[in-house]
Amino acid sequence: MKILILGSDGYIGNALVQRLLKKGHSVVGVDNFLRRLWVEQEMKSMSAIPIESMPSKIISFQGMGEFKFHYCDVATDTLGIKNIIETEKPNTIINLAHIPSGPYSQMSKENANLTLANNILGTNSILWSIKEFCPECHYITIGTTGEYDHYSNIDIEEGYIKINHKGRESAEMIYPRRPGSIYHCSKTASTYLIDFLARSWNLKCTDVQQSVVFGAYTDEIDETKIYSRFDSDEAGGTVVNRFIVQAVLGVPLTVYGEGKHQRGFLSLNDSIQALEIAVNHPAENGRVQVWNQLSEWHSMNAIAEMVINVIGDKVEVQHIETPRTEYTGEHYYNYKIEKLSELGYKPTRTIEEEIEYVYNILIPNKEDLQPLRNVVHPKIKWS
Amino acid sequence: MKILILGSDGYIGNALVQRLLKKGHSVVGVDNFLRRLWVEQEMKSMSAIPIESMPSKIISFQGMGEFKFHYCDVATDTLGIKNIIETEKPNTIINLAHIPSGPYSQMSKENANLTLANNILGTNSILWSIKEFCPECHYITIGTTGEYDHYSNIDIEEGYIKINHKGRESAEMIYPRRPGSIYHCSKTASTYLIDFLARSWNLKCTDVQQSVVFGAYTDEIDETKIYSRFDSDEAGGTVVNRFIVQAVLGVPLTVYGEGKHQRGFLSLNDSIQALEIAVNHPAENGRVQVWNQLSEWHSMNAIAEMVINVIGDKVEVQHIETPRTEYTGEHYYNYKIEKLSELGYKPTRTIEEEIEYVYNILIPNKEDLQPLRNVVHPKIKWS
Repeated sequence: MKILILGSDGYIGNALVQRLLKKGHSVVGVDNFLRRLWVEQEMKSMSAIPIESMPSKIISFQGMGEFKFHYCDVATDTLGIKNIIETEKPNTIINLAHIPSGPYSQMSKENANLTLANNILGTNSILWSIKEFCPECHYITIGTTGEYDHYSNIDIEEGYIKINHKGRESAEMIYPRRPGSIYHCSKTASTYLIDFLARSWNLKCTDVQQSVVFGAYTDEIDETKIYSRFDSDEAGGTVVNRFIVQAVLGVPLTVYGEGKHQRGFLSLNDSIQALEIAVNHPAENGRVQVWNQLSEWHSMNAIAEMVINVIGDKVEVQHIETPRTEYTGEHYYNYKIEKLSELGYKPTRTIEEEIEYVYNILIPNKEDLQPLRNVVHPKIKWS
Repeated sequence: MKILILGSDGYIGNALVQRLLKKGHSVVGVDNFLRRLWVEQEMKSMSAIPIESMPSKIISFQGMGEFKFHYCDVATDTLGIKNIIETEKPNTIINLAHIPSGPYSQMSKENANLTLANNILGTNSILWSIKEFCPECHYITIGTTGEYDHYSNIDIEEGYIKINHKGRESAEMIYPRRPGSIYHCSKTASTYLIDFLARSWNLKCTDVQQSVVFGAYTDEIDETKIYSRFDSDEAGGTVVNRFIVQAVLGVPLTVYGEGKHQRGFLSLNDSIQALEIAVNHPAENGRVQVWNQLSEWHSMNAIAEMVINVIGDKVEVQHIETPRTEYTGEHYYNYKIEKLSELGYKPTRTIEEEIEYVYNILIPNKEDLQPLRNVVHPKIKWS
């Protein structure tokens, strides 16, 4: 199968390219290296695990199978993405070309607008080219469980819901959203756009609503050592990954507020497992296939405890005022995650396993990580 | 009160400026004349009622009260809108600077991206400047009832809903959306953005979810004759207004599909009535005040019949295949519209009154309208 991966240089993209090449697919990667740029230039940070340049990756990936790479800014270069889709006519397009960070989107008006434009206009441009050049192509993207209201107090269904209201049963509705950052607003906007265009143009679309992704292991990366970037700054790094780097640096783990608020988690290996399942299970025409995905869910305090359990007693925890617009107390939390399981999905890597795995990669180069001391402590206030 | 009206040259903006000046407010208008441009250049159309240039309007408006005008593209000129808000520090900002057309947004990928960018990034930039320079300013915008699913089969509540699901009561949720065009997707995205930023920054925001606006009369325009634009092409003209022009031209009224699908309607005079009520009833800090608004609701067939009743038997109706992504059969339709009524809102103008009023304006210049014969018949297919 010919698969176009947009955002192929990113955390998940780099891992997914290798998984799909290993499975014998022809892979076309697209990226504009925006993530490399903003982590370096705006966050003054770097990947804690060194990553290879794209020219170097291309040589390695071409040794693993059929691989091509195009440089393109999917959101602004509408002609470029059109040309790529027209020329390649892929069977599947996986859109990971997002700015995926709540804190980044809250840094300034400019960052907010860039995040909205990149994520929404990118999605729109891709879908128009699919309609024009390969209407039977399967479009797969990653949503985020953060689109839903974590505090809705009811079960969070997989994308759609029917409700009873004043004695009447509703038609199927998009499960109500309540995004918690401008980034999450951009993803919510994409959800509605994909739903509408799939209905209008009879497209095949899958949206995997992934929770927080953690870790560095995948079956392929463990062999090739062509690592995905591993960020720990407050905009690029998600909680588990940031805590691991904080522990390696010997600085306190920063838990926001009471730390009782729960979130879902899944490993990098399981993120790409789900995307591979999506590749093999195209959506029906005209109706978006939505899967919720998490492997474990925990409070932030529990995550900090896991890091202490694995890395040792000398790790300290510091509760700091949450910079975010979020409640940090206890709440009802029940994600429905049945659809992926029905298709054979089984979590492969626990948080504790990944803490240990990444710790062992980082610790020999501990001294090289010292510049990260300046960036792992959150400073961006959302309000 | 100092009131900034973004999109002050538009259909509603032009009427609202005059209403608020008459009520003694200081009004600052902002526009980039994008609507004039795309109706002329892209739709090859024109306002059926001739409209004055902005320099001419400025002189008239300054004779009516305290009025200033700034040229600015709210969505792309982020520095310009920042400077205007920083300098003017208005008490109220009314954002009408939208591309408000489903068909326009469906014409091409470029039009789709422009609509998304204009409406979403404009909203975002304005709210950032409010936070920075006038956090107590009341932000008012017009949503659209088209964000909701017209076919949800349950009552459509005013913006928010609590639901019972599997024996649990939900927290208050944003009423589920299901937009029916890319334009409506852009408005849905703005809804989530406004909700999030109002919560995050404790802003005062009001969103009036208006239905289809029709007619040309307002208390002020009837005296000043400084008319709002009156479009009839398929992208710029909404159904009632387009039918009136079709009747004047002696071409058939184009009803989509079965014509049994219902929509809500309100007159231009009542659109600005509601916005004036919003000016006088600021939202609480941190919670968006959402009002649904319509004065009447009818099937498309019923609208066509009204035109025949008022204008005469010689008007013909032509059922054509709907170019839209919409169901045109019968369906349950119950909009909740209580909140505005509680604040004293009473519809002032019926569809029939406006058909007659506009017909009498147009008929003496019937010959000048002949070029519109080329544009009143819909051609843009949404699928």
